[in-house]
Amino acid sequence: MDVREALYTTRAMRRINDDPIPMDVQRRILDAAVRAPTGGNAQNWQFLLVDDPAIRGQLGPIYRQCLADLWDGFYKARIDAALAEPDSDDSKQMFSVQKSANYMADNFERYPLLMFAFAQYDPTGGSIYPAIWSAMLAARAEGVGSTLTSVLLFQLDTVLDLLQVPKDQGWNFAGCVPFGYPTGRWGVPKRRPAHEVAHRNTWGTPVGFTIDEPLWP
Amino acid sequence: MDVREALYTTRAMRRINDDPIPMDVQRRILDAAVRAPTGGNAQNWQFLLVDDPAIRGQLGPIYRQCLADLWDGFYKARIDAALAEPDSDDSKQMFSVQKSANYMADNFERYPLLMFAFAQYDPTGGSIYPAIWSAMLAARAEGVGSTLTSVLLFQLDTVLDLLQVPKDQGWNFAGCVPFGYPTGRWGVPKRRPAHEVAHRNTWGTPVGFTIDEPLWP
Repeated sequence: MDVREALYTTRAMRRINDDPIPMDVQRRILDAAVRAPTGGNAQNWQFLLVDDPAIRGQLGPIYRQCLADLWDGFYKARIDAALAEPDSDDSKQMFSVQKSANYMADNFERYPLLMFAFAQYDPTGGSIYPAIWSAMLAARAEGVGSTLTSVLLFQLDTVLDLLQVPKDQGWNFAGCVPFGYPTGRWGVPKRRPAHEVAHRNTWGTPVGFTIDEPLWP
Repeated sequence: MDVREALYTTRAMRRINDDPIPMDVQRRILDAAVRAPTGGNAQNWQFLLVDDPAIRGQLGPIYRQCLADLWDGFYKARIDAALAEPDSDDSKQMFSVQKSANYMADNFERYPLLMFAFAQYDPTGGSIYPAIWSAMLAARAEGVGSTLTSVLLFQLDTVLDLLQVPKDQGWNFAGCVPFGYPTGRWGVPKRRPAHEVAHRNTWGTPVGFTIDEPLWP
């Protein structure tokens, strides 16, 4: 697959079937992930792959509680605003995000493979999210969908206990990526055009080009 | 370019020539970047492209001071250990990292294009580093090398003043990516094999596969 197709179509893919991810596909995903850069080439990362149905079953209710906490906390003002004006574009996007996230929570046990990523000495996240994103792009090239979610941070102690992650070695949980074969289509996500979020030389100066439509395909 | 070639060969590329990056290439790089995912699809990002030689010239000494501070601080113990035992593999890697980073600092003014990335409401970095890494992968597909560096954080106030970035809107500096056409070759970086940093279902349980050589090409 062309790199641009992967970069443009690796969107959050939450609707999946129950097919397991073959071991050789998992192997190619992880091998691609560890080619990503880290500060000082420290490679201070660990990846925990979960496919055991018993553990996935225990994670499901935990995930749903975390998502409920997210809606009741960080997103409460946005959701209340959306409910007050349900027909605006922002509100529709909020409801769409919420519906999709709830779908994943309701079906969390069904994702055949979860990847938990951990980093040490990485205050910015700059040494772990490139590797996570590489794993998702490599999965895309294999026809495997994925989503990056960090809400399990709300129940971090419970999750670390369940996965038997040591708490005294400085491994910080960066995110969980559920993988699965999608039931829907891959598409290019809509985004605010790059020139609206870009500047040239100093903040507020136009970047010097405009982009009316995605430049791929 | 195949996505796996990009994922495997987008290594830190610091030795570059003076050729400018054409505007249409910059445009494709940024358009690919904004296809990356963000939490809640918030797209709370801003990208500042710097190509003005006067600003690059002012950033050079600032960058060199930041890197000197990094060696004297965060890396001091590692460097002292390496100097005490200069022939070990770890020490050789430390010297190699330091030499390459110093090269970039010494030549900072020469990179024809710098991309500064900023994020809002992104405590983990999970909503900005995928976009930064997408920009670097998209650049790779164009034959443009890049490196992600965050050391300008050591002189954040000075940098924000120079670039006229507002300090009261919650935009956090996530990193700077110097771009340029490389003088050297693209190669697959050596990494600790994935199976040595991976676990299955619970921490410490073997992941179930081994990887002796990079799985690409």
